[in-house]
Amino acid sequence: MKSKVLIKNAPLVTMDENCGVIDSGNLLIEDGFIKMISTGTEEIPGDAEVIAGEGKVVIPGLINLHNHAAMTLFRSYADDYPLMEWLTKKIFPAEAKLTEEDVYWGTSLALLEMIRGGTTTFVDMYYFMEQTARACQESGIRAMLSQVFIGAESSSKGFNTLEDAIKFIENWQDQDNGHGRIQAILGPHAIYTCPPDFLKRVLKETEHLNAIIHIHLSESRDEVEQSLQTYGKTPVALLDELGMFERQIIAGHCVHLNDQDIEILSSKGVGISHNPCSNLKLGNGIAPLQKLLENKACVGLGTDGAASNNNLDMFEEIKLCSLLQKGTLADPTVIPALQAFELATLGGARVLNMEGALGVLKEGARADLAIVNFDKPHLQPHNDPVANLVYSASANDVETVIVDGNILYDRGQFFTLDEEKIYYEAGKCARRLRQ
Amino acid sequence: MKSKVLIKNAPLVTMDENCGVIDSGNLLIEDGFIKMISTGTEEIPGDAEVIAGEGKVVIPGLINLHNHAAMTLFRSYADDYPLMEWLTKKIFPAEAKLTEEDVYWGTSLALLEMIRGGTTTFVDMYYFMEQTARACQESGIRAMLSQVFIGAESSSKGFNTLEDAIKFIENWQDQDNGHGRIQAILGPHAIYTCPPDFLKRVLKETEHLNAIIHIHLSESRDEVEQSLQTYGKTPVALLDELGMFERQIIAGHCVHLNDQDIEILSSKGVGISHNPCSNLKLGNGIAPLQKLLENKACVGLGTDGAASNNNLDMFEEIKLCSLLQKGTLADPTVIPALQAFELATLGGARVLNMEGALGVLKEGARADLAIVNFDKPHLQPHNDPVANLVYSASANDVETVIVDGNILYDRGQFFTLDEEKIYYEAGKCARRLRQ
Repeated sequence: MKSKVLIKNAPLVTMDENCGVIDSGNLLIEDGFIKMISTGTEEIPGDAEVIAGEGKVVIPGLINLHNHAAMTLFRSYADDYPLMEWLTKKIFPAEAKLTEEDVYWGTSLALLEMIRGGTTTFVDMYYFMEQTARACQESGIRAMLSQVFIGAESSSKGFNTLEDAIKFIENWQDQDNGHGRIQAILGPHAIYTCPPDFLKRVLKETEHLNAIIHIHLSESRDEVEQSLQTYGKTPVALLDELGMFERQIIAGHCVHLNDQDIEILSSKGVGISHNPCSNLKLGNGIAPLQKLLENKACVGLGTDGAASNNNLDMFEEIKLCSLLQKGTLADPTVIPALQAFELATLGGARVLNMEGALGVLKEGARADLAIVNFDKPHLQPHNDPVANLVYSASANDVETVIVDGNILYDRGQFFTLDEEKIYYEAGKCARRLRQ
Repeated sequence: MKSKVLIKNAPLVTMDENCGVIDSGNLLIEDGFIKMISTGTEEIPGDAEVIAGEGKVVIPGLINLHNHAAMTLFRSYADDYPLMEWLTKKIFPAEAKLTEEDVYWGTSLALLEMIRGGTTTFVDMYYFMEQTARACQESGIRAMLSQVFIGAESSSKGFNTLEDAIKFIENWQDQDNGHGRIQAILGPHAIYTCPPDFLKRVLKETEHLNAIIHIHLSESRDEVEQSLQTYGKTPVALLDELGMFERQIIAGHCVHLNDQDIEILSSKGVGISHNPCSNLKLGNGIAPLQKLLENKACVGLGTDGAASNNNLDMFEEIKLCSLLQKGTLADPTVIPALQAFELATLGGARVLNMEGALGVLKEGARADLAIVNFDKPHLQPHNDPVANLVYSASANDVETVIVDGNILYDRGQFFTLDEEKIYYEAGKCARRLRQ
């Protein structure tokens, strides 16, 4: 890791105000920031590590807004089950056996995969979040982490409580030393596990801690129906009434929305994590992405956990979010390539309230970026780099990943994570959990 | 290339009668066939090239039933356009400039991508098919190739005629010398470009040549509506009435089907190429795959051309065909992993009337197979190899590809194709065509 890196003569997909693509530019990284972008032939700082950009494309690091990283341990462990059977007979019993070690190694495996695939920031919600934070800190990735918790009356079942989640935030603030790469946020699970009175308490704590909220919202038909029956309103309307949308929030899924829901989410600037792959795989359906975007909703993309995807490949989400809208609206013009790519970069940054700092290649932004190798059969010829990224590329095409100015991955080599050890340890955890 | 290859101690996803997965087996290839599959510790033939199977998974070569290979030249050249504008303003004008050289290099690029991604057999339909055949012959892939043609009255526009297509078949039979790896078939474009009287002539020639038919069928809403208006019946009912389904046929797309169509396709054993990615991208929609399979229709998978996909990654089609049905039918149990994988292997072989010879790992089958490297973050832990292949893998994870017993690709190296030269030449063709 050097403090100065210069990427030379590379196409830059900037995602800046004009979403411009620079056909061949130089990008200088210094002290964790993008120091300079130029198209000239300026002198190269002698102490910079130089990366040749020919045949490659530089993109802002991808932002994964909804994950349960440690669930990589349950990848391909229980697929094609009815939702409730999947949860109650497979996932919950396995999760009941989870230890701190499991979460550490499961997260580490997810970090290998995310970094390998160009993801530089992710948002997580799971158990033993201090272990996730530990793995993230070691890896060098950027993350917002929430200890998942449910309404107090269910704490006996082994779930976390609000108090556990607050403790995580407070402890983390002590450990982080103000660096800010890893941020602890608050993760109430969903409205069907957190009743309104409890959510009011959560909201108060959120204000007190000045924390961001990460929650599942309107993911399944059942959730919406149950909410209508119990509260006489949709999950979105319920959270709005509780005042939840006055706070910064990251709402995962948002699949089943009526027009009023879309209007509320848009006008309140609620951050939405659109997770097309998981929504299909669990049988939840297809979110009205085009309608949300027409209403200027604040949307980015997420993979969800690897147990319901089953990978953490953001390129798949980018392609799928566009194709699903084209296919179901019978209109090949909707969500064009640039807009789909924007969701995974600029869109994610907007949801995290980090616009200008993340999801963009411009001077002064954080040096979180990925270099994609286009010298692959499926990325030839070079007719249009953005269309290639959106419709043809996959996580495997990423060659170099930089977060905060540090090279975390380069052509097969991880610099902060021990790949072989993680495979071994995560494999051991997975074998024990699936027994 | 050796005539004997032994893959040792590898998990084998056989797709044989019981679709069994052998946790650790040996597979011996001799003279183009799978000579032996065993789980014991038999003596290794001294003259065999040995491939160590640890950390890998061996699968039957994937079968891509619908492609326009040379259209890789138009990858990412014109996306997100309305269908008619895409065709008439972008694709047709570019295709009008196509030369034999273009088709040769465009096909070669597609062959790099397909072989790289574990596809060992594909079905094609395009112009200058003798150039496609030449590239296929050089590459070592298995293929069924059809010179596309439309109703005679349109020949003036530069499209091929039935006579051109027949000439291709006759010439190819002379050149092929009975090897049979590349088969020339007949490709009438679609019912909206081939009127019924013309299709009757085609059918006669098909019988005379004993050729398989490859046609686009019920791809778009417009095609079906136009057919109903003009002929008072659906495209499927029309072809049925013409007697087309008495011949072996590969029907591409089959998206817009009513119950009677599904009944006809199923009872007549019509071979269907389901192309989920292209169907979404062009705004055509989602085919009723689950219904087709419930009715025991003969279905495999295809990518369509790279201009409407935009890659030739069969793993994407496998994942997508399952996820789309789960998502739209609100049922995560439909098209489970093994069934999705079956469509790309056994299903494809059935459509090609090659069951037992292709799409399966068993003694006596053709040695067409791929080895997938599971030592990747997104394929860990090894909970279930088939679920990993279907829900987590991509074309990039293929490490070795064997067709007819010949190793065509191994860990980054192509043995029959010149990767650098193809990138250079295909890039040159693409630049000229998009001007």
